[in-house]
Amino acid sequence: MSFFEAHRAMLERAVSTCRSRTYWSAFPEAASGKIYGETAKADGEAAFKAMLGKPFELDQPAQGRAGKETSPYGIALGITYPTGSADSFVEASRKAGEGWAAASIEDRVGVCLEILQRINRQSFLMANAVMHTTGQSFMMAFQAGGPHAQDRGLEAVAYAYDEMTRVPGTAEWSKPQGKGDPIVLDKQWRIIPRGVSLVIGCATFPTWNSYPAIFASLATGNSVIVKPHPGAILPLAISVRIARDVIKEAGFDPNVLLLVADDADKPLAKDFVTNPGVAMIDFTGGPAFGSWVRENAATDLVFTEEAGINPIVIDSTNDFRGMCANVAFSLSLYSGQMCTAPQNIFVPAGGIATNDGPKSFDEVAAGIGSAIDKLLGDPDRAAGILGAVQNEATAARVVAARKLGRIVRDSGPAPVTGFNDARTASPLVLAIDVADESAWGEERFGPISFVVKTANTVESIARAAESTKRKGAITASLYSTDDKVIDQAADAFARAGVALSVNLTGGIYVNQSAAFSDYHVTGANPAGNACLTDAAFVANRFRIASFRRQRAA
Amino acid sequence: MSFFEAHRAMLERAVSTCRSRTYWSAFPEAASGKIYGETAKADGEAAFKAMLGKPFELDQPAQGRAGKETSPYGIALGITYPTGSADSFVEASRKAGEGWAAASIEDRVGVCLEILQRINRQSFLMANAVMHTTGQSFMMAFQAGGPHAQDRGLEAVAYAYDEMTRVPGTAEWSKPQGKGDPIVLDKQWRIIPRGVSLVIGCATFPTWNSYPAIFASLATGNSVIVKPHPGAILPLAISVRIARDVIKEAGFDPNVLLLVADDADKPLAKDFVTNPGVAMIDFTGGPAFGSWVRENAATDLVFTEEAGINPIVIDSTNDFRGMCANVAFSLSLYSGQMCTAPQNIFVPAGGIATNDGPKSFDEVAAGIGSAIDKLLGDPDRAAGILGAVQNEATAARVVAARKLGRIVRDSGPAPVTGFNDARTASPLVLAIDVADESAWGEERFGPISFVVKTANTVESIARAAESTKRKGAITASLYSTDDKVIDQAADAFARAGVALSVNLTGGIYVNQSAAFSDYHVTGANPAGNACLTDAAFVANRFRIASFRRQRAA
Repeated sequence: MSFFEAHRAMLERAVSTCRSRTYWSAFPEAASGKIYGETAKADGEAAFKAMLGKPFELDQPAQGRAGKETSPYGIALGITYPTGSADSFVEASRKAGEGWAAASIEDRVGVCLEILQRINRQSFLMANAVMHTTGQSFMMAFQAGGPHAQDRGLEAVAYAYDEMTRVPGTAEWSKPQGKGDPIVLDKQWRIIPRGVSLVIGCATFPTWNSYPAIFASLATGNSVIVKPHPGAILPLAISVRIARDVIKEAGFDPNVLLLVADDADKPLAKDFVTNPGVAMIDFTGGPAFGSWVRENAATDLVFTEEAGINPIVIDSTNDFRGMCANVAFSLSLYSGQMCTAPQNIFVPAGGIATNDGPKSFDEVAAGIGSAIDKLLGDPDRAAGILGAVQNEATAARVVAARKLGRIVRDSGPAPVTGFNDARTASPLVLAIDVADESAWGEERFGPISFVVKTANTVESIARAAESTKRKGAITASLYSTDDKVIDQAADAFARAGVALSVNLTGGIYVNQSAAFSDYHVTGANPAGNACLTDAAFVANRFRIASFRRQRAA
Repeated sequence: MSFFEAHRAMLERAVSTCRSRTYWSAFPEAASGKIYGETAKADGEAAFKAMLGKPFELDQPAQGRAGKETSPYGIALGITYPTGSADSFVEASRKAGEGWAAASIEDRVGVCLEILQRINRQSFLMANAVMHTTGQSFMMAFQAGGPHAQDRGLEAVAYAYDEMTRVPGTAEWSKPQGKGDPIVLDKQWRIIPRGVSLVIGCATFPTWNSYPAIFASLATGNSVIVKPHPGAILPLAISVRIARDVIKEAGFDPNVLLLVADDADKPLAKDFVTNPGVAMIDFTGGPAFGSWVRENAATDLVFTEEAGINPIVIDSTNDFRGMCANVAFSLSLYSGQMCTAPQNIFVPAGGIATNDGPKSFDEVAAGIGSAIDKLLGDPDRAAGILGAVQNEATAARVVAARKLGRIVRDSGPAPVTGFNDARTASPLVLAIDVADESAWGEERFGPISFVVKTANTVESIARAAESTKRKGAITASLYSTDDKVIDQAADAFARAGVALSVNLTGGIYVNQSAAFSDYHVTGANPAGNACLTDAAFVANRFRIASFRRQRAA
């Protein structure tokens, strides 16, 4: 059975769920031995440990090695990866792309699905790799770096398949000519890819944020060069190795997918971005380099997810404790290092109405602060939520931010059992007036948030929407018992191009973005110029070549 | 009945035909009194004449008037149009766009369909307007400027509708939680437009080439500013006036659609292209200004159709006369001023095999030359095919081109009955060696073509594909009786991103591109960065805003 036939049911379910946007997951998120095999956890850890301190085996053309990753949990990985110059990699990619471009839609899509399936089987290895590059806790690294990322990859394959199969392979075009014979043309169409696709990954979600682009480009016939963040190479190196095996098995040149590793002190990204042989670029990372990429890329086809300042507007609630607990979790999860984590919590100066009676501004701020303390009261539980801090600069930013407002809840260390040198920081919460926009109006990446005092909810919504338009936002959140306020916020945040969550109090958080249902990023504000999970994300990765032939009379 | 319901059947047929790509036309191409009304022809001409020498009535904000169109048939139109500055127009457009953005998909699409229907009723007026701006013959102006353009507009509406309705309005997302209650979120999505859309038209096909962009942008909720070529304002002014009436009737601010006219000696396009309030740009025109637009636009979202040099490869034929006649017509139609007209005809030095026995290179060239003479032998028939030459520069180019090779068939005047001052030029055909690439390797817009002598068909295909990659091409054509050659050409031209027609000998020509079936432009070579008629052309004109709300327990 072909790869395509083997995975056809999964693909069809993915295509239909992308349209219904109801709940579904192809790859189980439970890190369970019953699903992944009783020894999977131990095997994954052993496989990870066996990689440490060694050259990573990857059979690709290279002119040297790079790689200086250190775990945020305090261990040096000591892994190096084969790498090379933009000119040589782009040429190898272009060459390999010829055969890939000529393959059928089903052959390419089948290969993509098989890659995802095999990556899924390595989810425990991936969990270790993601944990020790991003600083995510083990459980989060398993889920977000494993099955959730795989679901996002599958989603991109589903969109690509759906989009490509909208173009019929053939048609008989018969134009009536009054009483005469019709003019008949036999027409054929084929998908032609753009060429070499460059995917630049980020340090915090190397797989989740890159799989959509990698699989969208592969499925539509492009060859792909993956340039991971120098701090998080391993998860993508493992992914590329698995993928190359499948590509080769299917009879294609494995250079259809290449990994280019680099070091922070010897970066290669700019060489690739400006290489005229690169047909399109996907970038996830900070807005500084993001805008450089947009402005300097040799190609006009650039998809970015950059960053933003995500707002929460608190107007009123009928579950004050649930609200505070929910917000506390959102601020704590992965120490605020998610692109979907909130930064600014807008609360009226006059306080809010709640099921526990009126709460003043200070009481709301304190409620969130103590919910964080409660959530993180148990150190092991805290470590499982917070993880570690990916980047030294983020840790320094937390310290510097303490001067920006009145400290509602201070940041502190968050020890991780077994990792004495882990770089950690629990959430810092500051109270501030809305006038101090120089503080809250900039992105403060990491576990830093502001409770921002506004005149009223109208001002809260206005300022939150305004900062979204100016600096970008991927998520917004609202708490209100008033349907009129909810409608106003829905309008304002839709216009600002940000996804809005309302009255989250239970086990679902504004940070979470579910594959097949939640569109991730809108492309309609500075947080990114594209949505990672819609038709536009794939439709322009290929073009359509036409052939028509007059039928002999 | 709403506009949407009134036109629903037409829309659904358009959507399904875009997927089957079989023959269909919504708007009849026959300039027949039985279809358009017995007095339609006379009414259209009278309405056109009544416009001459007067200010064009268009109730839109303006700070002055522009317009100096002269007919290629030798009469000055003397019509002026209200116009204004980029700042004021962009602001008026932005403001009007707010209500338009908030309308339902059905309301907007219904308005677009009604506009097309009303424009269709004015097809005879449009024929006169297109004829006396572009220089097309009356019949071509009727068809290409009228029903064919309307079909292309409908096609864009169909793609937009299909694309927007792939996003569900609502979904219940219910995630199982083992034995506990599922987490349930009520989700909603809405289409959010990009904002102000600028459409820059061309002088040769003001409606056909601009309707796809205008209707794709309008349907997806954007407000649109139309900037016609200063030489062909009237057809778009009539379109905008009809559209504004419908928009107003439907209860929207008519400034959702604005016309900005300018004069060649006082151009306004650059002001609009660089205005930061413009969210996207569609450009049709020459590559010089096209590349300026791509490089200087304030927005990254730019769709262009520029120009190219379209090749014909002649390898062999079993209908020599039919082939020569077909090529002759393609070279003659609208005096070679179509973006789909061939320029270079590659023929092997050793000649070709035909049903009439072997034909030498010179015999093939002569065959095409005499087929042109025959086609244009009757002056009235000639005028109906050739029309007039839109631009003085094109006429001068024909004269200058005579030195570029051996004249196979010389260009000459082509008088038009009733228009003594018409600017005309019949096709110039030159024979040339493939080595003289400085001659054939550049775009020579107008009735100028080269019969290019190559070593063999392999070289013909290679050079034709190569020039396509370098300079762009929208169409390619092949004559061959050898399926292997056809397959090789199909591969080569698909890789070069150009639509290929094979063995056209009857009443269908390489220049023709049929709505709902032929993709126009691929976006995969320098002839343009977008296809005017695919999903990617509409999918990025809007974004998706998400709203999710936790269901109360």
